[in-house]
Amino acid sequence: MKQLKGAVLLGQSGGPTSVINASAAGVFLTAIDSELVTDVFGAVHGVKGILNEEFYDMRKEDRKELERLKNTPASSIGSVRYKLADPKKDDTDYKRLLEVFKKYNIRYFFYNGGNDSMDTAHKINEFFKNSGYDCRIMGVPKTIDNDLNGTDHSPGFGSAAKYIATTLMELYHDATVYDTKQVTIVEIMGRNAGWLTAAAALAQAKGQGPDLVFLPEVSFDLDFFNKRVKEVLEEKGKVIVAISEGVKTADGKYIPELFKDLTTDSFGHAQLGGTAAVLADEVGKLLNVKVRPIEFSLMQRSAAHLASKVDVEEAFNAGKLAVEAALNGESGKMVGFKRLSSKPYKMEYVLLPLSIAANTERKVPLDWILPDAKGLSQEFVDYALPLIQGDCKAELEDGLPRFAQLKKVKAPKK
Amino acid sequence: MKQLKGAVLLGQSGGPTSVINASAAGVFLTAIDSELVTDVFGAVHGVKGILNEEFYDMRKEDRKELERLKNTPASSIGSVRYKLADPKKDDTDYKRLLEVFKKYNIRYFFYNGGNDSMDTAHKINEFFKNSGYDCRIMGVPKTIDNDLNGTDHSPGFGSAAKYIATTLMELYHDATVYDTKQVTIVEIMGRNAGWLTAAAALAQAKGQGPDLVFLPEVSFDLDFFNKRVKEVLEEKGKVIVAISEGVKTADGKYIPELFKDLTTDSFGHAQLGGTAAVLADEVGKLLNVKVRPIEFSLMQRSAAHLASKVDVEEAFNAGKLAVEAALNGESGKMVGFKRLSSKPYKMEYVLLPLSIAANTERKVPLDWILPDAKGLSQEFVDYALPLIQGDCKAELEDGLPRFAQLKKVKAPKK
Repeated sequence: MKQLKGAVLLGQSGGPTSVINASAAGVFLTAIDSELVTDVFGAVHGVKGILNEEFYDMRKEDRKELERLKNTPASSIGSVRYKLADPKKDDTDYKRLLEVFKKYNIRYFFYNGGNDSMDTAHKINEFFKNSGYDCRIMGVPKTIDNDLNGTDHSPGFGSAAKYIATTLMELYHDATVYDTKQVTIVEIMGRNAGWLTAAAALAQAKGQGPDLVFLPEVSFDLDFFNKRVKEVLEEKGKVIVAISEGVKTADGKYIPELFKDLTTDSFGHAQLGGTAAVLADEVGKLLNVKVRPIEFSLMQRSAAHLASKVDVEEAFNAGKLAVEAALNGESGKMVGFKRLSSKPYKMEYVLLPLSIAANTERKVPLDWILPDAKGLSQEFVDYALPLIQGDCKAELEDGLPRFAQLKKVKAPKK
Repeated sequence: MKQLKGAVLLGQSGGPTSVINASAAGVFLTAIDSELVTDVFGAVHGVKGILNEEFYDMRKEDRKELERLKNTPASSIGSVRYKLADPKKDDTDYKRLLEVFKKYNIRYFFYNGGNDSMDTAHKINEFFKNSGYDCRIMGVPKTIDNDLNGTDHSPGFGSAAKYIATTLMELYHDATVYDTKQVTIVEIMGRNAGWLTAAAALAQAKGQGPDLVFLPEVSFDLDFFNKRVKEVLEEKGKVIVAISEGVKTADGKYIPELFKDLTTDSFGHAQLGGTAAVLADEVGKLLNVKVRPIEFSLMQRSAAHLASKVDVEEAFNAGKLAVEAALNGESGKMVGFKRLSSKPYKMEYVLLPLSIAANTERKVPLDWILPDAKGLSQEFVDYALPLIQGDCKAELEDGLPRFAQLKKVKAPKK
């Protein structure tokens, strides 16, 4: 294998997570330690930063602060949602990327993100290969949605699942203190795959979870929803519902769309609130009961103080192994996780073709979903439990997390 | 001082917090250890449980589980919002309470709650005194709102403030990852006093907080709000706003009320969403920018996994000291905190007449509030910082909190 000397570049892409910076730490620290690496760049806002030649010089950072990235939420060097064109139709961006890579002698490129980002990395890899430019391109997986294909799970999911299960347990205690009837509807992220909402089953397994769980894998029916809430309310006096923001009716409508006529005001203003809010309004009127809608919103993906240790370590290792593999000649691959066993949890890191991850979304298996919106089967609990183990968070300073403080020194433009 | 033998009764009242059960642990464990105490009861849903003669026999619980109450959120024996009548107008409830107390030989009563609960305890104390029934009645303070009069702060506030500051820091990182314009509006609890929203200043002090902070202590003006958001947006491209659910206009209207005409639909349905949601809609249209409303909802008062160690310990001690004081002959008092110094933090426990706490709400001093909604002065930071120190949470079991599991054995009715 030919030893390739040159610069390392990392880009972060898509929605942030609690541990995407842990992967960045894995990439930066491993790259800095390599003798083959001449420069270590962070792309300012992902691929956009590359097109604009905007890079942070990561070697200017204190090592201690780079270590602290492991416990710092969100995308410290900036993220982006930018979709590259199909190079067969328009290769402008690709040519520009090639020009920039050559100018800065970038020979190692790591892209940290979800499906779209893997697609981007794949396309760049193909274009560079066809152009004869020797550059090793690796995907580092990241998504709280856990829907990346080809890997057992993705960094970010474990910590978000831990947040969801823990917070649902806490809400269970809070939402049951009064002897009055009450419905609580909790909205959880996940547009197409229900992995995050399924994490409610971890709280259920402790007897402190929601009564009803609605995933986007199953078509949503409003009458069925109302019927189930009514049944549980009559039986227990309290109902806690966990519902994915991505649930859709059989004819493909998101929940808020069902109420468009009702909630659009006379000025035609778009309706407020999401899935939980509109359902709370609906079921509250129908059953004449107090309903509280709750959205876990950005907290579920940024609560680094509640990160899973397993998740942080795997995220770091994914970044580290991507660099090591690239230095050893690999390209066009994504680091993936292959589970060997759940009890005890054993996993091995594997390299998958980027094209696999770039394709279909991985959804919750239908046979893991219990009927009557009762939750998930034991298979899901066995699957998810190993991923939320252990605590791993930033040290406290004044009782608050001491997150990484990067100097963010821009590399001089060439 | 006469030694009084008899049963101990604790009631929990009002909205739950992360540490109200820590106070319960302090009461129960201290009572169980006393030779003067014949029974230890927990009122099922506060004063309602007393009227109904519904008590848990706390001596039937495992001591280890009672210890675990320290880190278990919400009100484990059930809370209530029940306002006793003015005994001069209607003493039915008071006579019934007296009857029940006598029947069960309850000689020590502890009521754990906020302003209303202290008012209840005060009225019962006066009525019993006038009836010649020897019973020692003590208030144990509890409120995330921190608005109890006469005490430097109240158990529950420190943990909620820690949650708010930590979560705002995490949101700061998440809400700034893209290079696009964005406004985030975070709604925080507190109907009349702005202490909780003021905790945003702790995140500001770390350079990772909101840009604008709106407390209910200052009259809200929508034009001023829009102007400030616009100014910060033009300057920084991103705006994070922390706003209390309790802000009101000069003529006493809550924010959602301002938009009632706009958001009531043609069926007359009440509008959805709270303060953040309606402001997000408003400012989004006005400035043509993406605005995300976030509510900390029940999480801010039930996130026991993020409790402050200082808060947990003070809450426990407040319960413990209330029992010890009552056993020593005190009655009609609330345990309060008197601060001796902030740097280093020194505090002593004091006993205040219940009537003091039952009266006016304590608000954030106006001279601690910076102009232009910029946040709070250093005085507030110095005040609040000692209260959020240290971590103290339930041990993990399967990666999730192992909360107290009470048997909840009902005491036989007499």
